[in-house]
Amino acid sequence: MGDSVKHLAILGSTGSIGRQTLDIVRTFPGRFEVLALAAGNNLKLLDRQVEEFKPSVVSHLGKQAAPAQGIRYMQIDDIACLEEVDIVVIALSGDAGLKPTLAAIRAGKRIALANKESLVAAGEIITTDAKKYGASILPVDSEHSAIWQCLAGETSQPERLILTASGGPFLHFSASQLNQVTPEQALDHPSWKMGRKVTIDSATLMNKGLEIIEARWLFNIPAEKITVIVHPQSIIHSMVEFADGAIKAQLGYPDMRLPIQYALLYPERLSNPGLPGLDWSRIRELTFEDPDYDTFPCLRLAMEAVEKGGTYPAVLSASDEVAVDLFLDRRIGFNDIARIIELTLTEHEPSLTTRLEEVLRAATWARETARRIALGDSR
Amino acid sequence: MGDSVKHLAILGSTGSIGRQTLDIVRTFPGRFEVLALAAGNNLKLLDRQVEEFKPSVVSHLGKQAAPAQGIRYMQIDDIACLEEVDIVVIALSGDAGLKPTLAAIRAGKRIALANKESLVAAGEIITTDAKKYGASILPVDSEHSAIWQCLAGETSQPERLILTASGGPFLHFSASQLNQVTPEQALDHPSWKMGRKVTIDSATLMNKGLEIIEARWLFNIPAEKITVIVHPQSIIHSMVEFADGAIKAQLGYPDMRLPIQYALLYPERLSNPGLPGLDWSRIRELTFEDPDYDTFPCLRLAMEAVEKGGTYPAVLSASDEVAVDLFLDRRIGFNDIARIIELTLTEHEPSLTTRLEEVLRAATWARETARRIALGDSR
Repeated sequence: MGDSVKHLAILGSTGSIGRQTLDIVRTFPGRFEVLALAAGNNLKLLDRQVEEFKPSVVSHLGKQAAPAQGIRYMQIDDIACLEEVDIVVIALSGDAGLKPTLAAIRAGKRIALANKESLVAAGEIITTDAKKYGASILPVDSEHSAIWQCLAGETSQPERLILTASGGPFLHFSASQLNQVTPEQALDHPSWKMGRKVTIDSATLMNKGLEIIEARWLFNIPAEKITVIVHPQSIIHSMVEFADGAIKAQLGYPDMRLPIQYALLYPERLSNPGLPGLDWSRIRELTFEDPDYDTFPCLRLAMEAVEKGGTYPAVLSASDEVAVDLFLDRRIGFNDIARIIELTLTEHEPSLTTRLEEVLRAATWARETARRIALGDSR
Repeated sequence: MGDSVKHLAILGSTGSIGRQTLDIVRTFPGRFEVLALAAGNNLKLLDRQVEEFKPSVVSHLGKQAAPAQGIRYMQIDDIACLEEVDIVVIALSGDAGLKPTLAAIRAGKRIALANKESLVAAGEIITTDAKKYGASILPVDSEHSAIWQCLAGETSQPERLILTASGGPFLHFSASQLNQVTPEQALDHPSWKMGRKVTIDSATLMNKGLEIIEARWLFNIPAEKITVIVHPQSIIHSMVEFADGAIKAQLGYPDMRLPIQYALLYPERLSNPGLPGLDWSRIRELTFEDPDYDTFPCLRLAMEAVEKGGTYPAVLSASDEVAVDLFLDRRIGFNDIARIIELTLTEHEPSLTTRLEEVLRAATWARETARRIALGDSR
């Protein structure tokens, strides 16, 4: 293996993005070396990954030790800082992504960031620190990767970012229809295969709201210059408008392996048999419509939260995480997700500081408050 | 005016592209100085342009001298080489563009090239010479500008170029319907306002054929990696597919001022009130279909000509120019355009040389042959 081998730490290796990251590693032998894997409780899969990719460091939350020999165990935050690591892939879901992301940033790493919630809760801290410590953040998300690709080679600031949304499985549903939907229906996304949390967020449109906040920080652009349009075919992954009226878009089949591969190989583009070009003989129309902010209030709540700033986005994200969990556990209905988030935001006494402790305290408060609102004092 | 003022020579200033180029100059005062204007016979308009933009050099084909004082007259080829000129805009239509383009290239200029026919007839000569003399060619054409914009910042060769075609005013017409169409109908393009020659070429789809050949040379890509799809809304101006399956597209309203401005200001993008961003609340669908190669044989003829190479593309282009003129003069029907070009190509005894004299001789032969085929010996 030559100098161009990139050494990876993959945090969240047993989740959807983690598994697809390892698929990219497998596709390009000799290009990557997996130095570290970190997982949660899925030790069975982690064991198989350890056997195949032979990392020298492992982290997990389980009780039993993984069987492989000669492997060091570490805390996940320490893995994010390992000196030999070139790229830290943050494939953790939810609030769990924040601390390792900050650790990697303060170690000046190149970070392939698939975790939305960390930027949503602490975007200002993360981007300020990234500048301070010389870290770079490469988005692993089809929309932000599309925007990043469209900005390549451009010397001027974008005039507008246009995030496309599939509309999710419940596009054109009424609020009363939404009252009846089950977790199974919500998990059955029409175009994207993703983890459970992000799939439910797609169904409520909260996912697009979180992406607005993420884009605001990743591309250092005011949130009011970010527009969402519903594009059910999920072929255009997002667009950038420039001062001269020109728009650039990135298109492709909905497949998370493309943004993963783009971030890992950047700036190279290599052929991947699993990622064919679009077959235009089958693509006959791309359609667009405005989001329904009334029926899907999560998008509006996110836009309000980013506008208010401070600890509001952290509260939005944390209360959403609680509400999605409760919905998946069938303890609340689909429309309750937005209702709980909105009530939590209303109760929130914000801090406009950007100190990490304030953000974490607000998130903890939001989780408790959301649970109390949802379940009463029976928590 | 500071150092950043760009000095322009505009060849073909009274035509459609020339007038729109001057509109861009007008929009950005202090950015450009018009050093030279060259026109054909429209002396009235040239006089007005001279008065407004005060060039120091002028060229025209008319007999009377322009009235303005202190202006030098020159041959158009000499204007293309003026030392003080930073950008030569080649806005001439048809074969007239070839010699000034070559002159500008051999003078090592930056060339904003709106003339398709020169690259079609002599693409290999032009691109080889551009490399040799350090000239750069910036496309002024919505499709090639779109591709150029999509290639910005990319380090790898594109896997495929996808040229979009509006389909012209006769999309979905049958061959027998096409037999009846008039020059007026053919000049009424549904989405683009352009000069007469290119508008008729759009109606026959020859325009897209010429663009394939142009793209082949501009982007140094084999013609078989260039695909045409019909996209009647003319919002996506063209696309590039990369090895990893990612596609980048450039979108906007159909307005030639964008590619003109992009070439003149490159790499800057400046706000132009005349070029607003797309209003997505009005764009509800973008559709795509395959071209009808049987009813519009010009596209197929162009693809065959570029594949055969040598002098074939020059013959294609020259015979098309004759046929379009005859159609506009009502001396032949719409379907005769393709028929005359095909017969001329069939009669052609090609040379595979890339010497300029051979190319010019083939073009002259093609013009005579096309006229003979169209009108018999009564020419």
